[in-house]
Amino acid sequence: MNQQRFHNPAENTVLLLVGDLLTEGNFAEAAQAVVGMHASELAFILQLLEDEDFLKLMHHLPVETQADVIPELSDYRQQLIAEELAHHQISPILDQMDSDDAADFVGLLDTEEQNAVLKQVESQNAHELKELLLHEKDSAGGLMSKEFIAVSHNSSVEEAIGAIRKAVTETEQIYTVFVIEEKTGKLLGSLPLGTLILAKPQTVVNQIMVQTPSVPVYLDQEQVAHKARKYDIPEIPVVDSNFRLVGRITHDDILDVVEEEAVEDFAKLSGTGDEDISTPSAWQASKYRIPWQIIGLLGGALSAFIMSRYESTLGKLLAIAFFTPVIAAMGGITGIQASSVTIRGLALGSIGPKDIWKRLRREFAITSINGAICSLLLGVLVAFWKHNFTIGTIVGISLYTVMLASTFSGTVIPLVLSRLKADPAIASGPFVSTLNDLIGLTVYFSLATLAIQTFSQAFGIK
Amino acid sequence: MNQQRFHNPAENTVLLLVGDLLTEGNFAEAAQAVVGMHASELAFILQLLEDEDFLKLMHHLPVETQADVIPELSDYRQQLIAEELAHHQISPILDQMDSDDAADFVGLLDTEEQNAVLKQVESQNAHELKELLLHEKDSAGGLMSKEFIAVSHNSSVEEAIGAIRKAVTETEQIYTVFVIEEKTGKLLGSLPLGTLILAKPQTVVNQIMVQTPSVPVYLDQEQVAHKARKYDIPEIPVVDSNFRLVGRITHDDILDVVEEEAVEDFAKLSGTGDEDISTPSAWQASKYRIPWQIIGLLGGALSAFIMSRYESTLGKLLAIAFFTPVIAAMGGITGIQASSVTIRGLALGSIGPKDIWKRLRREFAITSINGAICSLLLGVLVAFWKHNFTIGTIVGISLYTVMLASTFSGTVIPLVLSRLKADPAIASGPFVSTLNDLIGLTVYFSLATLAIQTFSQAFGIK
Repeated sequence: MNQQRFHNPAENTVLLLVGDLLTEGNFAEAAQAVVGMHASELAFILQLLEDEDFLKLMHHLPVETQADVIPELSDYRQQLIAEELAHHQISPILDQMDSDDAADFVGLLDTEEQNAVLKQVESQNAHELKELLLHEKDSAGGLMSKEFIAVSHNSSVEEAIGAIRKAVTETEQIYTVFVIEEKTGKLLGSLPLGTLILAKPQTVVNQIMVQTPSVPVYLDQEQVAHKARKYDIPEIPVVDSNFRLVGRITHDDILDVVEEEAVEDFAKLSGTGDEDISTPSAWQASKYRIPWQIIGLLGGALSAFIMSRYESTLGKLLAIAFFTPVIAAMGGITGIQASSVTIRGLALGSIGPKDIWKRLRREFAITSINGAICSLLLGVLVAFWKHNFTIGTIVGISLYTVMLASTFSGTVIPLVLSRLKADPAIASGPFVSTLNDLIGLTVYFSLATLAIQTFSQAFGIK
Repeated sequence: MNQQRFHNPAENTVLLLVGDLLTEGNFAEAAQAVVGMHASELAFILQLLEDEDFLKLMHHLPVETQADVIPELSDYRQQLIAEELAHHQISPILDQMDSDDAADFVGLLDTEEQNAVLKQVESQNAHELKELLLHEKDSAGGLMSKEFIAVSHNSSVEEAIGAIRKAVTETEQIYTVFVIEEKTGKLLGSLPLGTLILAKPQTVVNQIMVQTPSVPVYLDQEQVAHKARKYDIPEIPVVDSNFRLVGRITHDDILDVVEEEAVEDFAKLSGTGDEDISTPSAWQASKYRIPWQIIGLLGGALSAFIMSRYESTLGKLLAIAFFTPVIAAMGGITGIQASSVTIRGLALGSIGPKDIWKRLRREFAITSINGAICSLLLGVLVAFWKHNFTIGTIVGISLYTVMLASTFSGTVIPLVLSRLKADPAIASGPFVSTLNDLIGLTVYFSLATLAIQTFSQAFGIK
């Protein structure tokens, strides 16, 4: 998701040059041309290459550049590199990376390979990586890095500045010095650099430190992002179950989480995969999409079966068939509206899994209004078109019922999934619309059959 | 979008207490109970109240609290306050706010009222606000605040620290001191606080400053977010056409943009409104959703009309009608997949508006594979079910054609809209699926009619 589009002529020039050199098979010179570019710009160019060219060019890059660019690549491309490189080639790259990026990269290998690689990593780094690898990728522990600065509560401002001086080679992003209790390692507070810069050198830090929010190491990344957004801080400390400081998560990683969660929800709503956009392989993308299409197909086959059960109704009054697409489409649209608002609300935390009644009341109120408008509109249209008030009434009532039924399933299914600790977003998109198609058609045909039996004269049916 | 859900018992206690006090009509005491809460927590409670209670409680809050909490409220609630308060009540609130939040708030008033309010604001603030109000809300200028720290290139580190000391009362978030050319005000570079803290007091800043990315004041907020993500910096400076530093955008505002853009795209894909989740009014939400439902309704009416044109085909072979829902549904799913990937790619910048051929090749490759799988599956299923190879073939070929047609419209429409400088996301959701329904049904019935005319014997039709 780190791809960017550039309109900077200098970057386009590099792109053209690299293209030419690769066509000539001159990988060494192509590598020279890109060294020194910003990592995200280089990643953009690398993502455009075919797998084979990509791997060859990566091989020719210096270790520092490899370490900078790997975190900016898609998971698919990182996996390719991890599989291609030998263990003794991966270890020096890991040594150059921030610990969170290194853990993500080495996490792509299987456990046996991880151990082999970690044996060759510097012992301090290996220790940190092993710890980070214990955490779920989508938790605070999976996001955090170990490159934080902490001082004991009875240190002076001067000592805190000394700690920054010591850390500065390996920590590019410094916003805060954290304050911990000397004996226990417990997080006590934080010193924003702005505070530190204005304080007298001899001041003891616990006199000027401020309270800081923190997140437990097991917390889900979505909750981490909520908390960070709430307090508008550039980095959030991560603590273990004893409230000991174990890591920090910086604003750029929070931004990635928000983007990633949005992409995930969007992908589920549209029946595609998270990586669909970034994978260059049509095979890969087709694999992400086919499950949703199969769901649609099976739902459709069921619809056909339902319709075939009402063959005699349709045979008596073919016009009933004309309105199946509109009934199905309206059930789909209404259901998606209700489910997407519910899913988004759950993701943002403004709706809780227990708010079923409250949400249903709201969603039913909305559909009562819009369903009335749509049903009246369609009913009148059909009545005039077919010169038949009864058929207009059936279509109108069916539409209203279908819209209410879809509202119910679109609202309740995500909330129930959320209560069952499942991801509510799987209830969006193709799944809900297929279900609503089936409910919709059943309601419609049942009503139509009933009406034809009851008012057969009105339809001119003998 | 700043709502949060809390599981903190202390916050729930406040919520219950406030509820009780409001029921008693004791607004003054309720206000006392919430003063001192974090602004985003207070905003959460305020969002839960009915409009009337909300306004009364706001009235009872001290000006500082009002200024803190207003930026955290939904646009709808901010508008309510802006309309309710008298000019002389708004001005002191604005004086307490950060300039970007103040500009957003006063921007909700009409021009005449804005002028009346700004007359009562401190002259320096009024000047800044007038400048900020000139910019589009969705541009870098609309996002930026004027609370930045800048020093001339020949200042010393000591002077830079002095500038921080002077600014610190009005600027909570300090990460960088920007360096500008003394005469022209042009942006030359930046001093991260980490650098500044380690430098000797007498060092001249242009010897230690680093290059900084910047954004022009007119740049669209989506592009601003791209740039900020690319460089992982906590704040990005904003420059005018002469490259003069005019503002800064901090990481929390970037986060809001990313969230907002995702919510917008999600809302369009699902046919709801951006504010659908946050508005407490069912009337309001129903207004957001009805346009998409009307599109679906009109599309459905057109579908019915198309089907009626093929009445004789359907009359001859009713089974054709059974497969209309599956043809329509698959066209919908496939079209949404293609359009959502295209729209998301355009939003992230990994696809350019001119990539039509490249994208079409990729999307057609995907659908060629999946279309073949789905068509074969459905064709065989239908052939066995209906004991009729020809009808299976018609349904299979129709499905394949419909999936390719939807892929075409789902890919091309967003790209064309983007080239026309329109928002590609309007081509997602209900719009594309309705269009694909119509294309799909036309293809299906044309093929079926042709086949029935050509192979009438195979269907046992005389």
